[in-house]
Amino acid sequence: MLRSIGRQTAYFIGQTKCRSIPTNWSAIVCKNSSRDEHKFGSAVQQPCRHCATSHKVGQCESASTNENSHRKKKNYTNTINSNNETEGEATLLAQQLAQIDEEVAHLLALKAKLGDGPATPQKFTLKTPKGTRDYSPQQMMLRQGVLDKIIAVFKKHGGEAIDTPVFELKEVLTGKYGEDSKLIYDLKDQGGEILSLRYDLTVPLARYLAMSKISTLKRYHIAKVYRRDNPAMTRGRYREFYQCDFDIAGTFDPMLPDAECVKIVSEVLDTLDIGEYVIKINHRQLLDGMFEACGVPADKFRTICSAVDKLDKSPWNDVRKEMIEEKGLDASAADKIGEYVRLNGGIELVSQLLADEKLKAVPSAVKGLENMQLLLKYCDAMGLSPKISFDLSLARGLDYYTGVIYECVLKAEPKIVQNGADAVEEQGAVGSVAGGGRYDNLVGMFDPKGKQVPCVGVSIGVERIFSVLEAKNVAAGIKTRTNDVEVYVASAHKGLHEKRLSILNSLWDQGIKAEHSYKLNPKLLVQLQYCEENQIPFAVVFGDSELTKGIVKLREVKTRKEDEVPLTELGNEIKKRLRN
Amino acid sequence: MLRSIGRQTAYFIGQTKCRSIPTNWSAIVCKNSSRDEHKFGSAVQQPCRHCATSHKVGQCESASTNENSHRKKKNYTNTINSNNETEGEATLLAQQLAQIDEEVAHLLALKAKLGDGPATPQKFTLKTPKGTRDYSPQQMMLRQGVLDKIIAVFKKHGGEAIDTPVFELKEVLTGKYGEDSKLIYDLKDQGGEILSLRYDLTVPLARYLAMSKISTLKRYHIAKVYRRDNPAMTRGRYREFYQCDFDIAGTFDPMLPDAECVKIVSEVLDTLDIGEYVIKINHRQLLDGMFEACGVPADKFRTICSAVDKLDKSPWNDVRKEMIEEKGLDASAADKIGEYVRLNGGIELVSQLLADEKLKAVPSAVKGLENMQLLLKYCDAMGLSPKISFDLSLARGLDYYTGVIYECVLKAEPKIVQNGADAVEEQGAVGSVAGGGRYDNLVGMFDPKGKQVPCVGVSIGVERIFSVLEAKNVAAGIKTRTNDVEVYVASAHKGLHEKRLSILNSLWDQGIKAEHSYKLNPKLLVQLQYCEENQIPFAVVFGDSELTKGIVKLREVKTRKEDEVPLTELGNEIKKRLRN
Repeated sequence: MLRSIGRQTAYFIGQTKCRSIPTNWSAIVCKNSSRDEHKFGSAVQQPCRHCATSHKVGQCESASTNENSHRKKKNYTNTINSNNETEGEATLLAQQLAQIDEEVAHLLALKAKLGDGPATPQKFTLKTPKGTRDYSPQQMMLRQGVLDKIIAVFKKHGGEAIDTPVFELKEVLTGKYGEDSKLIYDLKDQGGEILSLRYDLTVPLARYLAMSKISTLKRYHIAKVYRRDNPAMTRGRYREFYQCDFDIAGTFDPMLPDAECVKIVSEVLDTLDIGEYVIKINHRQLLDGMFEACGVPADKFRTICSAVDKLDKSPWNDVRKEMIEEKGLDASAADKIGEYVRLNGGIELVSQLLADEKLKAVPSAVKGLENMQLLLKYCDAMGLSPKISFDLSLARGLDYYTGVIYECVLKAEPKIVQNGADAVEEQGAVGSVAGGGRYDNLVGMFDPKGKQVPCVGVSIGVERIFSVLEAKNVAAGIKTRTNDVEVYVASAHKGLHEKRLSILNSLWDQGIKAEHSYKLNPKLLVQLQYCEENQIPFAVVFGDSELTKGIVKLREVKTRKEDEVPLTELGNEIKKRLRN
Repeated sequence: MLRSIGRQTAYFIGQTKCRSIPTNWSAIVCKNSSRDEHKFGSAVQQPCRHCATSHKVGQCESASTNENSHRKKKNYTNTINSNNETEGEATLLAQQLAQIDEEVAHLLALKAKLGDGPATPQKFTLKTPKGTRDYSPQQMMLRQGVLDKIIAVFKKHGGEAIDTPVFELKEVLTGKYGEDSKLIYDLKDQGGEILSLRYDLTVPLARYLAMSKISTLKRYHIAKVYRRDNPAMTRGRYREFYQCDFDIAGTFDPMLPDAECVKIVSEVLDTLDIGEYVIKINHRQLLDGMFEACGVPADKFRTICSAVDKLDKSPWNDVRKEMIEEKGLDASAADKIGEYVRLNGGIELVSQLLADEKLKAVPSAVKGLENMQLLLKYCDAMGLSPKISFDLSLARGLDYYTGVIYECVLKAEPKIVQNGADAVEEQGAVGSVAGGGRYDNLVGMFDPKGKQVPCVGVSIGVERIFSVLEAKNVAAGIKTRTNDVEVYVASAHKGLHEKRLSILNSLWDQGIKAEHSYKLNPKLLVQLQYCEENQIPFAVVFGDSELTKGIVKLREVKTRKEDEVPLTELGNEIKKRLRN
């Protein structure tokens, strides 16, 4: 035991070799603890749940020092107990452990001063860029399942798919995102055009419509977008993330496409089954009219709108303070806004506001309210009333909205709980899971003659949905299959690999998903265990004795029941069983 | 007629307004001539089939001047003929046309001197970045169809999907691509990590395996990669393009996974039905052994290998010259290589080479040949022999291959023909449609302890396949539907939009793909025409008279046959008919 700890100390100091971290430590630090990712201890960089970056295990600056050192101690103690040491030895060890902790803390502090330079023999910082992640096969299954469901809803409403390049000319993105422009990723000037990674799918759509002279389109677009934001990965906020957008472009009668977007959001969330939600709706013209009615100068509409947008995260008093102190608004105007933004409800609220003396006098407020009235009527015709809330505090950050705006939030935030017995931790709120609105002037910014194509659309916040569903699966202990293999071809003894190949070949040619061992002479038990571990429904088992009779054994993996099947009938028999 | 030409002249000079280009001119210049993209003439930028960039119509520097001016003349002449002018007038016009051509050429030359600055009132250069394109709904349908078929093959072989970020730390890509490194897109240094866009999916896989400590994986990855290459877009060579990779990682018995990769390529090309193909196979160890046997110094193996790689595009004499003059190889060594690289065949060629005096003496040549022998035997067991060729001229560009290498080329290059009566033009060869090989040392470059994970894989050149299939569809006049709408809900007279909404809502809730007009009171004829144009199979038609009876008319769009269906039965009836 002493020798074992001695070895570990050496590696803490040296920081170069494997120190065989006890498994339950790995389980605390990483969700993927089933893989042996942590074996190499401090030499290995892992995505961290405390902060956005990947770094060495236990070295998160965002985690409390207590948490890190507590884990180390706990695990050393576990090791001690499992070895049944005497109490005296345990005390000695505890002292040594304390000493080790001190040494480690000292070394880590030193290392932190040295910056990110490689302290290990590896040539690379083995990580994905800040705010990004790899998707494992397990995560891909979940992701593909979610995207398939969303696409099905989009197609149900006649959506057509388009795709655009991941980067655009920088000038295409310039002047579209207001303050958020600083979050755009630029490409290096390597000669030629100056490029930026797309920030959303809306501006590329507008560029596409203007460039292709398309005036009517119902399109969906599912693709990654890029923002140099402060990542919060456990809550599904990444620097590279998927957007799932559905937009309706064209000149139509008021609110008909706008109402269908509400229906689409509702269908998507119903089909994904991630809990109850409310779709908040408001109108930019009403907001502007309300600001006017409250005495906000016209040149402050957008900046006061940005302040209102913070009401989902900050209390009114903070927002009021920002309006007055940072943005120079009169206290009386701010207080009037405060009266309005606390209001939310249904169609009756529209009537109430249409009768409001201050708002009645402002044409854009009346226009916005009439639009809202129509929208809520259409939503009612589609049975959406119980799911929506006309909410005067909804403002949305982006500059380009001109009419209806939407945002969908989960009613009861699910508690996202990390797996691992020692580390039950509640994560923060997932936030909004969909949003959007009408933007009638964006396409015209690209058209050489300024020709407008009015648009309205919604974007599904699918990364947040992934996070919620991933946490749900982890909590329920669900492990989905990561491939679709239907049959495993196993040989009972040596020298059958070419026969395996020819049986496999015939199954593949019949469209059956099949695999085998890439070893020449694998043990039969190992092959059958593989089938059970990977939940493959059937195995074909054969040896010379079967081959001479022109048959193979078809084994149902779950029940271990075997039947003899003529080799010539194998494909048909498997297909028949798969259908049942 | 004269006035018409006069007007066109004015716009050629002014370069700002619409000049109503004759339709058949648009058809020559652009495949998407059905859209009114060319209406704005020189003010509109379009992707060009001559060069990689988008530029104004008829202004391609890569096209011969003759070609451009020829087109203009031809079309003016067409216009003349269609107007039945007299011969005298035609001569006058021809003179004026010549004058216009001169003026235009002069103005274009002036403009070229001024550079890319905007010469029109539009604020943006309305284009996608060089070497990239948007995918229209039509192209997306084709693309998704192709990808679905490829994924089905990958899954048949037990492939699991993964995904990685579109960018990597720059140092992850450094030193992996040899001379091609200059083609990597770098991101601008905006503070924080230095990033590059991925160049392929192989290096990110190796990084993923090392980082996640995974030693066995059968994965596929379909995603876009980025190369600052010289684009040739009509031949499917882009700067942003899809790769479809299947790789088998793990320590296995020789050639079993390598042979399965050949099978996978063969299945993919069979299922895509793009014509006959041959899968060329060679072995890096045999190539090195061959170089050694021919007297090439060891430090020249890679550079001579690069020269051999050019044999698919250049004749032997050019390659020989490069070896001797540029790379300083002895003429006698080059000539010995020349003897070998002209050889190709099947398993009998392996036996012949195993008996070759020079090769017999070189261990790596013998090792490579033995591997080839095994591979060809396995391929034969899977019925692949007629589709493969052991080809000593196959070298592959990338540095990281260590064993078997593959490349698949179409046997009869399809003639890619542009649509448009005046512009039948043969495109160049599509080139290889799949490639790959074994790379046993790449993962070890990332692992902190240098632990190797042997890998072998193939990449399907899906952009080239899109190009071939797109051209095929255009040639066959195939126009696929771009959405899946099953029912259109049409109202027979005014004032029914809310009833439309409620019928639609019920259909959507039953999972039926349905749409309607976003106009309050569309004309019935317009609605029914829309159904026919968009090949929507069914239409629901109703007016007050139907509603009072509690029925609607269900119309089969193709036959225009209508039946009365109770509103309560509508969903079920539609589903029943869709099943048949």
